[in-house]
Amino acid sequence: MKIETIRHSLAHILACAVQELYPKTKFGIGPAIENGFYYDFDLPRPITPADLSKIEKKMKEIIKKDLKFEKKLISKAKAKKLLKAQPYKLELIKELKELQVSIYKLQDFIDLCKGPHIKSTLQLHSGQIKEVINSFKLTKIAGAYWKGDEKQPMLTRIYGIAFKTKKELNEYLKVQEEAEKRDHRILGQKLNLFHIDKDVGPGLILWHPKGAILKRTIEDYALNEYLENGYKLVNTPHIAKIGLWETSGHTNFYKENMFPVMHMKEMGKEEKDDYEVKPMNCPFHIAIYKQSIKSYKSLPLRYTELGTVYRYEKSGVLHGLTRVRGLTQDDAHIFCTPEQLGKELISVLELTSKILKTFGFKEYDICLSTRPKKYVGSPKIWQKATNSLKFALEKLKLSYQIDPGEGVFYGPKIDIKIKDFLGRSWQCSTIQLDFNLPEKFKMTYIAKSGKKQQPIMIHRALLGSLERFIGILIEHYAGAFPVWLSPVQVQIIPVGQGHLATCQKLAEKLKAENLRVAVDDLNETVSYKIRKAEKQKIPYIIVIGDKEKNLKSLAIRKRKNNKVSKTTIKRFIDKIKKEISQKN
Amino acid sequence: MKIETIRHSLAHILACAVQELYPKTKFGIGPAIENGFYYDFDLPRPITPADLSKIEKKMKEIIKKDLKFEKKLISKAKAKKLLKAQPYKLELIKELKELQVSIYKLQDFIDLCKGPHIKSTLQLHSGQIKEVINSFKLTKIAGAYWKGDEKQPMLTRIYGIAFKTKKELNEYLKVQEEAEKRDHRILGQKLNLFHIDKDVGPGLILWHPKGAILKRTIEDYALNEYLENGYKLVNTPHIAKIGLWETSGHTNFYKENMFPVMHMKEMGKEEKDDYEVKPMNCPFHIAIYKQSIKSYKSLPLRYTELGTVYRYEKSGVLHGLTRVRGLTQDDAHIFCTPEQLGKELISVLELTSKILKTFGFKEYDICLSTRPKKYVGSPKIWQKATNSLKFALEKLKLSYQIDPGEGVFYGPKIDIKIKDFLGRSWQCSTIQLDFNLPEKFKMTYIAKSGKKQQPIMIHRALLGSLERFIGILIEHYAGAFPVWLSPVQVQIIPVGQGHLATCQKLAEKLKAENLRVAVDDLNETVSYKIRKAEKQKIPYIIVIGDKEKNLKSLAIRKRKNNKVSKTTIKRFIDKIKKEISQKN
Repeated sequence: MKIETIRHSLAHILACAVQELYPKTKFGIGPAIENGFYYDFDLPRPITPADLSKIEKKMKEIIKKDLKFEKKLISKAKAKKLLKAQPYKLELIKELKELQVSIYKLQDFIDLCKGPHIKSTLQLHSGQIKEVINSFKLTKIAGAYWKGDEKQPMLTRIYGIAFKTKKELNEYLKVQEEAEKRDHRILGQKLNLFHIDKDVGPGLILWHPKGAILKRTIEDYALNEYLENGYKLVNTPHIAKIGLWETSGHTNFYKENMFPVMHMKEMGKEEKDDYEVKPMNCPFHIAIYKQSIKSYKSLPLRYTELGTVYRYEKSGVLHGLTRVRGLTQDDAHIFCTPEQLGKELISVLELTSKILKTFGFKEYDICLSTRPKKYVGSPKIWQKATNSLKFALEKLKLSYQIDPGEGVFYGPKIDIKIKDFLGRSWQCSTIQLDFNLPEKFKMTYIAKSGKKQQPIMIHRALLGSLERFIGILIEHYAGAFPVWLSPVQVQIIPVGQGHLATCQKLAEKLKAENLRVAVDDLNETVSYKIRKAEKQKIPYIIVIGDKEKNLKSLAIRKRKNNKVSKTTIKRFIDKIKKEISQKN
Repeated sequence: MKIETIRHSLAHILACAVQELYPKTKFGIGPAIENGFYYDFDLPRPITPADLSKIEKKMKEIIKKDLKFEKKLISKAKAKKLLKAQPYKLELIKELKELQVSIYKLQDFIDLCKGPHIKSTLQLHSGQIKEVINSFKLTKIAGAYWKGDEKQPMLTRIYGIAFKTKKELNEYLKVQEEAEKRDHRILGQKLNLFHIDKDVGPGLILWHPKGAILKRTIEDYALNEYLENGYKLVNTPHIAKIGLWETSGHTNFYKENMFPVMHMKEMGKEEKDDYEVKPMNCPFHIAIYKQSIKSYKSLPLRYTELGTVYRYEKSGVLHGLTRVRGLTQDDAHIFCTPEQLGKELISVLELTSKILKTFGFKEYDICLSTRPKKYVGSPKIWQKATNSLKFALEKLKLSYQIDPGEGVFYGPKIDIKIKDFLGRSWQCSTIQLDFNLPEKFKMTYIAKSGKKQQPIMIHRALLGSLERFIGILIEHYAGAFPVWLSPVQVQIIPVGQGHLATCQKLAEKLKAENLRVAVDDLNETVSYKIRKAEKQKIPYIIVIGDKEKNLKSLAIRKRKNNKVSKTTIKRFIDKIKKEISQKN
């Protein structure tokens, strides 16, 4: 028995329970999803989370009744009659092309459904998978537009989770509980890293001092790595004439993700072209490439930019830092000859591994997506490029899976999902070949033969969106960042106001070593200040009292182990600087 | 005799000459300006720069004729009759409120004009200032809308320069010639620093690798200074809901400088608020301030951001990097109590001096602008704040001038103009007090008394716009940046292809010391490569031949003095790193 079948059947049982409790309910749809199921309802009255346990109880009663899931194939006309009180179902029936439709009956609940389902609810409480009755749970209520279309009515979606065994459920709940504790939206607020402001707009991040320094530290590190690896920094505007996006094709295939046009005629008659906020950096890098004639000798050219782009996403899908409307990419575009492609791909993949490891991500899933049905370029160049990608992955002994036909229309790509501390996967790095833009922008280089050739273009972002990456980092480390990333690396606490000057002196010494230091000079007790610093997950806390007055010896409290150890300033500086340079 | 009177009179002589040469000309206006004069004409046929010498010759003939400048006060009706063939003059007469208007007659040219003028052209060729006949010059032709309004007809503007003596003219022309050589638009292209792209849009800078690294170096330096001086980095979006700008008042008093609104209803019905690209960073910093309750103990708060803002400027006024539509500000906002204001202003001014000096600007004009006619806040707070500004300037023994009534409506300000190598002044740093935004955004802090108070807000940008500042830097240094700013600090040139490996080895050694190094590996002659590097104004050139094969001794060619000196790698590294750390 597939778990998806159980989950789908639980969705029907949920609907059956809701029908019993709220007889006037109109039903949307109810599929199995990852870890569980949901059902969309048009309810006669709003329900609250408290109602969920009532519904859950009713579901268990239904399960215990040993009811059959009865399938029937009937004519559309008959189905319409049977479901005449259900407008959403009627709409679905109308849209079906088949002459006969399949319905499922469970007690009094009739659903338009292809199945499959379990045979009877007996299976769930005393049959082969009887544990299920104790290993599912209704989890939350959310609003969802009918058919996901905001022009349609808003329905009430009830989510449930379901597993085959109670053990699996508990493991899942434990991860969930841990994930909740690590929720970057909550930690982001507690650690004072960022906020999203209702007056500024959803999906737009305002980085507070601690978050901004974290972001800049990551950017500086990444940029440094890129420069060392032969990338060249460029810097481009956040807006451009709409014509640029027409040439690139974005106004066509990316329109729904672009913010609305700025109509420049509002500024006066001399303005003929409208403008758009950029959703991508690519056309700007191409414009820089095209500023001078390129020879094969000047390739490969690797342009990198910490480019902030704006993409429209429906407000419903926005989520903290991990799904936003404004994002800074560690973007780069590599322009090379076909002969250089293999070497470039290997070095991009090597750099990716190095950088992801530095941030503590050692496990990842790699996926190679090949030619889709609709594509540009010749099948030959697709084959060659796909082979180059495979060759690079194999050369570096990276295991990967192939997603046939899942490439973007403009070229094959490699996506890398990182696994965080809780084993959850996050889409992060992407390396995409592009046969489209060099063509659209008529890019060329002079080949050895003296003829004009079209360069190959690689899009690559290793961290992806900095916002999203920091969101993942917060959850991965539960906010306790490695020293090199910590916004405050050392917190200095005076025992009394009389020790403040010594604290300032120590702070100056540490700042001169480029350490990020704060002195807590508020008039509170030492133990309260230590607790505060611990909650801020600061790696090192130094308390200065009478014994430390001459700064000959320091009492250092290290995060986690909570032990106090004595050392000298010099030894402490050596130790922390070593940790920082090793990125621990 | 004031030079302005001479310049204004020359404008009339120019018009008189044009009337003789192109009798059907309609006349606009012709004032004296800095260094010269202009006159706007609606000409019967287009003229070319070649025509200027003909006009200039005619002007000298007129001057030699010893003509009188005859002034008359006449009725408006009479003036209309007299100037009936001059539609622009008629329009001006209509707008005049006076009953009588003043006209000037010079030979057959009659102008509506208040004067004053010289008595007769005699003064210019044989009178007390006879040198003028040889110390004026027509310089260029440009298009200019009548009344500066793009809805009005486009007139032809002829510019001239004029001085009292030939010596002054020659000095001016010499500076102009030198300025032309230093023109950042030309050097920017030669040094491959940036370009402005017709497909991206006017006033929007695309920074090429060399320009981007220069910009980042300046940003890193400034940011580091700010962090050391107790500023905190923040980072905010480039777009925001229009409501934010309504609260701040920008949609009212700054509307014509804001890019057009993005109408979000285009994205779907869930979007109720329109968005704007930001022209300022202030409201975002305020939003961060307001995220938690502030006490007097947490003030002053100094938020800094390298914030890129977009401001609409008419395309006609745009100029290379110095007048743009997209600009990165080294912006900061300081929030403090009234008691803290004095100390804050002193430290802002100290930091400004330090930073401007680092970039080689040792001379500047400081201007304090006081309360204008329209203002917010009480006269008392204006007085106190203005006194604080004066006190800070005097405490630091900085000489300044007062511009009475020239403050912005929201507070008094200090503007600093730097003087470049050619003695030209450039508006750069600005320090503005703001009594408006804290009020509009209802900002508060808990004072010692326990009561809520409104903080004082200081806007400050020390470099101003990075784009503009780099434009000034290019002209100031004629592209030969100090070593710490040079995009490429060391160029390594192999004598033959056989020396390439040694060059690469040296490059790696220097890169490991964080130096920006390039190896010229193209197949060209050594002397050609040296010339190329010199044209790129690279501070150090190292040629590697047989003698340097083991890298025990290097032949270093220093920019400017062009002498080759022998040294060891270690000594060279020590020397260049010292220069960099001293910002020479």
